Amino acid sequence: MKPEDMILVSVDDHICEPPDMWDDHIEAKWKDRAPKLVHKPDGTDSWVFEGQQLVNVGLNAVAGRPPEEYGMEPTALDQLRKGCYDVDARIDDMNVNGVLGSLCFSSVPGFVGELFARQDDKEMAAAMVRAYNDWHIDGWCGAHPGRFIPLAIPMMWDAQLMADEVRRVARKGCHAITFPDAPTNLGFPSIHSETWEPFWRACDEEGTIVCIHIGSGTRMKLEDMAAPIEIMIASTPISLYGCAAELTFSKFLRKYDNLKIALSEGGTGWVPYFLERADYVYEHHKYWTKQDFGDKLPSDVFREHIVTCFIDDAVGVRTRDLIGIDNITWECDYPHSDTTWPVAPERLWKSLDGVSDEDINKMTHLNAMKHFNYDPFAHLPREECTVAALRSRATDVDLSLKRGGGGKSPSDYESGYVTIGDVVQQMATAISTPIE
Amino acid sequence: MKPEDMILVSVDDHICEPPDMWDDHIEAKWKDRAPKLVHKPDGTDSWVFEGQQLVNVGLNAVAGRPPEEYGMEPTALDQLRKGCYDVDARIDDMNVNGVLGSLCFSSVPGFVGELFARQDDKEMAAAMVRAYNDWHIDGWCGAHPGRFIPLAIPMMWDAQLMADEVRRVARKGCHAITFPDAPTNLGFPSIHSETWEPFWRACDEEGTIVCIHIGSGTRMKLEDMAAPIEIMIASTPISLYGCAAELTFSKFLRKYDNLKIALSEGGTGWVPYFLERADYVYEHHKYWTKQDFGDKLPSDVFREHIVTCFIDDAVGVRTRDLIGIDNITWECDYPHSDTTWPVAPERLWKSLDGVSDEDINKMTHLNAMKHFNYDPFAHLPREECTVAALRSRATDVDLSLKRGGGGKSPSDYESGYVTIGDVVQQMATAISTPIE
Repeated sequence: MKPEDMILVSVDDHICEPPDMWDDHIEAKWKDRAPKLVHKPDGTDSWVFEGQQLVNVGLNAVAGRPPEEYGMEPTALDQLRKGCYDVDARIDDMNVNGVLGSLCFSSVPGFVGELFARQDDKEMAAAMVRAYNDWHIDGWCGAHPGRFIPLAIPMMWDAQLMADEVRRVARKGCHAITFPDAPTNLGFPSIHSETWEPFWRACDEEGTIVCIHIGSGTRMKLEDMAAPIEIMIASTPISLYGCAAELTFSKFLRKYDNLKIALSEGGTGWVPYFLERADYVYEHHKYWTKQDFGDKLPSDVFREHIVTCFIDDAVGVRTRDLIGIDNITWECDYPHSDTTWPVAPERLWKSLDGVSDEDINKMTHLNAMKHFNYDPFAHLPREECTVAALRSRATDVDLSLKRGGGGKSPSDYESGYVTIGDVVQQMATAISTPIE
Repeated sequence: MKPEDMILVSVDDHICEPPDMWDDHIEAKWKDRAPKLVHKPDGTDSWVFEGQQLVNVGLNAVAGRPPEEYGMEPTALDQLRKGCYDVDARIDDMNVNGVLGSLCFSSVPGFVGELFARQDDKEMAAAMVRAYNDWHIDGWCGAHPGRFIPLAIPMMWDAQLMADEVRRVARKGCHAITFPDAPTNLGFPSIHSETWEPFWRACDEEGTIVCIHIGSGTRMKLEDMAAPIEIMIASTPISLYGCAAELTFSKFLRKYDNLKIALSEGGTGWVPYFLERADYVYEHHKYWTKQDFGDKLPSDVFREHIVTCFIDDAVGVRTRDLIGIDNITWECDYPHSDTTWPVAPERLWKSLDGVSDEDINKMTHLNAMKHFNYDPFAHLPREECTVAALRSRATDVDLSLKRGGGGKSPSDYESGYVTIGDVVQQMATAISTPIE
């Protein structure tokens, strides 16, 4: 295989929602209360919902900027690459990067719809969640059949409503839904609570994968203001290690045979260590803890249920036999600063030296198709889905770097480098100017 | 090489301090205020210091119990294997396990002397730290020359006092000292603070390795009472991932060429992932963060300064070229429940299939000797230091499992298995009975 022959499906990208997203999908009675993008007197944009400003319009959506400006936080929609919020431009950006399929996480509602879950008016909140999902499935993914894996957000405050929504969107062809890695951090019951049973059951029965994204529950470590920002960036993916342990030793995962969970943006290179440690702990301690995995080991349960993904992770590729070759998927993370866009195929290929075509195909697209219930070849002939074929359609996409894109500076560089305190300060000021 | 030919040096074991440890080493004026082991009316023992009971006499010191009783928390010294607190018995237990050398962490003062650091009377506290170190170096390690790597505890409240203590104990042959993985969690400045400069400088100049043990700063995740206890046990070693990131991107580590830091009980299998991630983050983000590693990468800085260790970690052995073969050491964790005692050589050997003698020797003892400034062969001929030679001296050590060893039960098993809530409850009741 050559790099241009790969078929790439990314199971973790992001949408910066367009302002017109609520126009066609919210029930008329709630239309006036939907989130609105407001242009502020200082020239910045802000989403406003129920009188509150949301943190940002395009959090870290810096694809297409020169690396020197990755830290400039966009403060207006026109500072973003159009592919961040416009679905046709997104397809162009996928094509030019050789990416066939994409699963896109929400921004405005939070990863798990927590913006809506925080509202007192739960009837309104549920309507917003349904409208968001309808827009995402019909408006965004529906615009280009075969190019997106639809992903719903849940009504976190009511597991029965969540189950109903899983079944409702499944009938519309959506078989993925988000869930936080540590629901207790958002004020919800832990995954060891019986509360979630209706939700797990619905996902199990509908073949719906549960997508747990980094930062969806466990908060980033931001306490040490003097620490270089790299410490936070380097530590974020592996924040899902704890979630992997919670899931592997949970009761519910062993109960629902068909249930699949994706650790979104969690990386893969740490998984062999985790699995060995989980088995060691089980075999070493089960006599007093009374845990019982029957004829299985914790690592077996992990491999039966949990799907990992990576952006650029040579260690994970090298140790893929220990992770489970059927459990590894790939992601692009467009348009966030960790993305390898628009050279994803070239970056990925460097990690694939000596890997068989069969294993490459599993990691690049076959596993994603299987676990996420996604069949692009029902819409597009396979030969039109390769990196080379997609790139041949995108010859007029502008890849010049957008210098001076605008936004908030990350730091005054007083310490010589960007610290966590600098970035906390940068975020805090994003919502400091009044709406009008 | 055969398993019995290995020479094993463990860089992470633990002492349960004997009650007479203060007799010969504390200055006369403070003798009455030294911690005392008190036998309570309910039959349990408790250390008492400045009117406060300490949590336990032998926290998790369960070596020699049947695995069914690993969870029974010892509540009296006579419930422990003698090797936990008696140095001659410890040597027998090392011999029977084929272990030549051992670095032993403190229990009563905490890993970093935080029991003393919490006291208002800093003169008394400093005297206690010095007395502890003198007992550890002269009383414990000094009893069997060549068999222990001495390890001091610091005066965490004063970096200059710490530096002085580094130099004082170095003159006594001690070239290792503890430090917490997240000092801010104990109320001290972060490692990015200039505060610690005198300490780092003293360690650099004296060739003293800084030993950062799991649980010394970052607390275990104990919030979710319904979670199986395995989640906590499986997640604890990798709690040092964040510390590895803090160190690698810190200013001070690049400043002191000679400074070495050990990640004690941190495991090794996750290190290749960490190093790849650290380099990715640096190369991807340095343009806006302004971090500058000169002609090096973060992974180079890690390998120049940071020493890892593992109990049983086949993944780390397999990926040792990515960690750095000179950075890997081995540990036994006697007498805690994760230990492989008394079959450490057999357990370790399973992970060494296909590994060259040179690499085995580095991981089992040569790296520990180099980084911890430890030369057992100055005291014992090399041929007397192998697993086989040591075991031949320990033919009369009683290895029968001590059933019904006593202590606090971990759980009523109401959930079917031990939960985090059960263990929190168990610990809380350990100090609930009055002293008299």
